[in-house]
Amino acid sequence: MLFPQSTYIQRRQQLRELVGEGLILIFGNNEAPMNYPANAYKFRQDSTFLYFTGQHRDGLVLAIDCATGQETLYGDEIDIDDIVWYGSVTSVAEMAAESGIAHTAPLSQLFTLNFSLLTLHYLPPYRHDNLLQLMELLGKNRQEVMAGRSQRLIDAVVKLRSIKSAEEIAELERASHIGYLMHTAAMRMATQPGMTEAYIGGQLDGIAASHGSIVSFQSIVSMHGEILHGYPSAAPLEPGRLLLVDAGAETREHYCSDHTRTTPISGRFTQQQRDIYDIVVDCHDLALTHAKPGVKYFDVHLDVCRLMTERLKALGLMKGDTEEAVQAGAHALFLPHGLGHMMGMDVHDMEGLGQIYVGFDAETRPRLDQFGTNALRFGRRLEVGHVVTDEPGIYFIPDLIDLWQKEGTNKDFLCFDRINEFRHFGGVRIEDDVLITPDGCRFLGSERIPYKAEEVEAFINK
Amino acid sequence: MLFPQSTYIQRRQQLRELVGEGLILIFGNNEAPMNYPANAYKFRQDSTFLYFTGQHRDGLVLAIDCATGQETLYGDEIDIDDIVWYGSVTSVAEMAAESGIAHTAPLSQLFTLNFSLLTLHYLPPYRHDNLLQLMELLGKNRQEVMAGRSQRLIDAVVKLRSIKSAEEIAELERASHIGYLMHTAAMRMATQPGMTEAYIGGQLDGIAASHGSIVSFQSIVSMHGEILHGYPSAAPLEPGRLLLVDAGAETREHYCSDHTRTTPISGRFTQQQRDIYDIVVDCHDLALTHAKPGVKYFDVHLDVCRLMTERLKALGLMKGDTEEAVQAGAHALFLPHGLGHMMGMDVHDMEGLGQIYVGFDAETRPRLDQFGTNALRFGRRLEVGHVVTDEPGIYFIPDLIDLWQKEGTNKDFLCFDRINEFRHFGGVRIEDDVLITPDGCRFLGSERIPYKAEEVEAFINK
Repeated sequence: MLFPQSTYIQRRQQLRELVGEGLILIFGNNEAPMNYPANAYKFRQDSTFLYFTGQHRDGLVLAIDCATGQETLYGDEIDIDDIVWYGSVTSVAEMAAESGIAHTAPLSQLFTLNFSLLTLHYLPPYRHDNLLQLMELLGKNRQEVMAGRSQRLIDAVVKLRSIKSAEEIAELERASHIGYLMHTAAMRMATQPGMTEAYIGGQLDGIAASHGSIVSFQSIVSMHGEILHGYPSAAPLEPGRLLLVDAGAETREHYCSDHTRTTPISGRFTQQQRDIYDIVVDCHDLALTHAKPGVKYFDVHLDVCRLMTERLKALGLMKGDTEEAVQAGAHALFLPHGLGHMMGMDVHDMEGLGQIYVGFDAETRPRLDQFGTNALRFGRRLEVGHVVTDEPGIYFIPDLIDLWQKEGTNKDFLCFDRINEFRHFGGVRIEDDVLITPDGCRFLGSERIPYKAEEVEAFINK
Repeated sequence: MLFPQSTYIQRRQQLRELVGEGLILIFGNNEAPMNYPANAYKFRQDSTFLYFTGQHRDGLVLAIDCATGQETLYGDEIDIDDIVWYGSVTSVAEMAAESGIAHTAPLSQLFTLNFSLLTLHYLPPYRHDNLLQLMELLGKNRQEVMAGRSQRLIDAVVKLRSIKSAEEIAELERASHIGYLMHTAAMRMATQPGMTEAYIGGQLDGIAASHGSIVSFQSIVSMHGEILHGYPSAAPLEPGRLLLVDAGAETREHYCSDHTRTTPISGRFTQQQRDIYDIVVDCHDLALTHAKPGVKYFDVHLDVCRLMTERLKALGLMKGDTEEAVQAGAHALFLPHGLGHMMGMDVHDMEGLGQIYVGFDAETRPRLDQFGTNALRFGRRLEVGHVVTDEPGIYFIPDLIDLWQKEGTNKDFLCFDRINEFRHFGGVRIEDDVLITPDGCRFLGSERIPYKAEEVEAFINK
């Protein structure tokens, strides 16, 4: 367990008060088979289960009866055959005692509960084994189980997990340190002759696993930065291009980091690259001066879009009234995603509970019918203890440029002839992890990964 | 695709002839969510799907109608939103054409088939998403779907995939080369001051990912070699102990390697360690002189057990008649697993189809009621083109020693007082990947990872 027992007891107490009635079931994760039943991916506990129990073993379910306050940890014990293969492990009773949970029971006991008589609260399952277990427990089909997830439980979990404690922030700082090691290594490798995206991607896996547990998401390592989730290819890096690396680590306790850097493979930016890169730097810095408690992150996003539009107009890539262009979503040709997302024990924190419930409330709900805005992940008013990413980018996506030009989308604001001069540019993104403080915000991590153009060039040519 | 189109066409033709009648459905894998729906583990295609199609994308199903020979690749196309996030990808029609499959259809079309009128052949699903899809397709529950797997299809796939072609062997050699890089790096790291199991484990992930795609199974890196699947801990390595590393890589085409080395953390074996280590070396070498076409691998296993028993008797750890001790399974206190397993596109090749069908036939079926023998994975008569592991080990498992001593298990063959002098020893295993050739067998990989005691000491002290 990462934190003292009292932390977990208090969290469960708060959860019970927020939900108020009924039986809460929080499912831990099971082993996830890769290519046959016994060959699993590295085990990754469910973040919410970890938040309320601190326990890392597979095959556990936490039950909290809101009426009586009774807490039960369901799980099966291991036998001598398991000990030969996996060594002695903590028993379910020992885990429960460690977490301050009074009762334990074998998993089969879950099937003896009469769910038709209970008000049941569960989170939307994102793994098919847990979905199937719920289908079998409740005697319902996939759609019925998905529809039956508890909004009250979702809202309660989001409320609790959204505000990071000092102890959680310390763990996030550890994750950011691993991110520093990963990105500085990638930047140095990017300029080495004969290097491939795949080699760098693999080394990032290694750094994350050696210093933490696993990458917080599959690393994006691509000369095609315009492909937002561009996974590494085996082709050698081409001098003259930019390499975009978006990668993060999880600590052994599964707190995350998430950074992006864009590095010139030749060691120096061209003038054209520099023109775009410096806009992204300034957008990135602008966000940090605007982000503070009480401000809607949606508004910070729009401020960044305005600055980006102004600067793209100066380069001859956009035209017309800045405010009208931003309202029309014209900038989304270059920035089709949001400024950032919440981060914590999930790199997109709690995304499995429904991004709309994590990132928004009634006053910040985005227009889901507008390209770009529909990809916003976080728009809420910032609060002390929020951790969010600041990750503006500018991309030249040939298929999207061609589509919009053909359809005339936002043609009053976009200079397609000039844009086509950049169609093989790729993309630039710069991303850091930011903690909202009483005074504003600050970066996570004790060392900054170089990001200003001069710093980047100095670092990789050192 | 790794091989020419004709290879895949021929494999499907052979499969159709072996199965003979009905509709064959081979499910590819889908993305496997880690901690929320959009955050997946690294994609790993199903090996059998890859064997018959060569295609690496998620969300595909291959159908072969044995009566008409019609082949259909089911899968959904991507749209412009996907292109923004993932770039342009090969269409389902293009993939089908590349693999020589005449027809394509969207996945929803699968649900229009009238399965009650069809003789359906499918493999046992090992991922819950595919299990659930089968439940929904067939209108059956979990147990019915599992029971409905096709023995005829299992046998046909085992028959085809068991014999490795020259092209497959070349790919396995590539995997073994990555294994060489991994193990030589781990051996060098093992003697560095302040090193941890977790750090080495992470670096192995990195080497596998940089040079191939992923580790072929979660690396075992442990000072407690006696825990057969001992995952790395964060504790520093202790001079004087042995470090057992069992690890392998998959190439980008998912052919595997699997090697084990046991390294003295102090750089030199103690006399006690050397006594045990040399027995394992000799058992490992003996297997290679006995393994040849026509020989049952079960018999090679027993030969190794006899040699091990003889040598443990000489050390005063066992006693009595060697043949009687082996028949009684007394040696299994030290070697509770089998000599090896088949290897190919799965590190335990085709284990998901049922180990008993892969590793055994009527004349080699092991006794499942005897400890040790019940953990055998491969006993068949060897054939040219088989690839198997040779991995004897000797372990001192305190919980098992105590249990057997208390129960008097095999007390006529075991010298418990002497055994208890070794109870904190740990374990030794040496493993290599072996190809059965017309003349006997040979190692895979162009370079041998040092394994004889003198070679190991010379290598790590270089």
